[in-house]
Amino acid sequence: MNKLITFEGVDGCGKSTQLKLAAAWLKARGEQVVTTFEPGDTPLGKEIRQLLLAGDYLPVPEAELLLFLADRAQHVRSIIQPALESGAWVLCDRYSDSTLAYQLAARCLGESAADLKEMLRFAECGVSPSLTLWFDVPVEEAMRRMKIRAEAGEKATRLDAEAASFHKRVSTAFGHQFDFAPDRIARIDARQNIDAVEQQVSQVIKHRFGMAV
Amino acid sequence: MNKLITFEGVDGCGKSTQLKLAAAWLKARGEQVVTTFEPGDTPLGKEIRQLLLAGDYLPVPEAELLLFLADRAQHVRSIIQPALESGAWVLCDRYSDSTLAYQLAARCLGESAADLKEMLRFAECGVSPSLTLWFDVPVEEAMRRMKIRAEAGEKATRLDAEAASFHKRVSTAFGHQFDFAPDRIARIDARQNIDAVEQQVSQVIKHRFGMAV
Repeated sequence: MNKLITFEGVDGCGKSTQLKLAAAWLKARGEQVVTTFEPGDTPLGKEIRQLLLAGDYLPVPEAELLLFLADRAQHVRSIIQPALESGAWVLCDRYSDSTLAYQLAARCLGESAADLKEMLRFAECGVSPSLTLWFDVPVEEAMRRMKIRAEAGEKATRLDAEAASFHKRVSTAFGHQFDFAPDRIARIDARQNIDAVEQQVSQVIKHRFGMAV
Repeated sequence: MNKLITFEGVDGCGKSTQLKLAAAWLKARGEQVVTTFEPGDTPLGKEIRQLLLAGDYLPVPEAELLLFLADRAQHVRSIIQPALESGAWVLCDRYSDSTLAYQLAARCLGESAADLKEMLRFAECGVSPSLTLWFDVPVEEAMRRMKIRAEAGEKATRLDAEAASFHKRVSTAFGHQFDFAPDRIARIDARQNIDAVEQQVSQVIKHRFGMAV
């Protein structure tokens, strides 16, 4: 079992904050931890992220999906795989479940879902997470949090600007993926406050990896 | 049957020159013709081409393949499909056969070829060529021509700089694809001079599309 944990959910669900807290907690136990994210955490990926999110190019849905997958392959081969092989934990903000939720379900590319899942597997280059944390929060609450962030000056991406119905489809898709793979995906109640969510996260990680409490 | 013709072969095989000649010849017959190329003939594709060929980023083989496919999807949806629907001929310099030859065969990504062919189909967005012209020329001759072009000041890409063994594998792969799909792919003897090759090309097109001689 590898030590890759992916953090998933709609924007505003709190996953990035919780990823930092989990990394700090693991490091405090003496563990080696690499934190990373998608899209865009390699030099090539940074350029791809720009094409995807800056809003200058409007990729067609198929091109959007393939660009996210290209970013993933580069990320896996140059960051995730080497880190796992060195024995580190890898905590990754978004991974294949985001692609399924955003590109396949919300963009309605899902007609030939079996073929598309093969493509996702190809882009993962053989590296699937041992644990995925799904931060489940109502879309209205997530959008409220995103609005606060925007007012605080955080730059919005092209996907942030999608309508509520789009984010709703994404959220529903995450729920379906959880139903489909409950052994890998743990549902975190992300409506709670930061401390209570952190508590859930650390319990799930300890349980999944058989760590002392 | 659509009017998409793809022009394929190793660099230096003469396909781009012949594409221009074929377009001129069709236009002289009063046909509407769109000429295009891969990678990079859309605004998004131009950026992707830069990532692929400029040599700054060194995509891993899986990312390279996925970037070429993203470029294709954007190209099909925004240029090829609309042109075909308007009734035009589309002559395209490189298409899926190049991806098969360069990324799958020469980069040795071909282990799970069946899955990968599904990905190619996905990127084509339902648009396969009615005719593919394969300009077959010995690799040594193609490399000699590329050397002349480089001496004349043409900028080389990252792929041009690959070793002869790489171009040899690409050439062999084109041959296998021809063996596999002889109804769609026509082999053009590209060792001959430009006029003789043009003669072959026009005969094949007339025959395939049932045009008057």
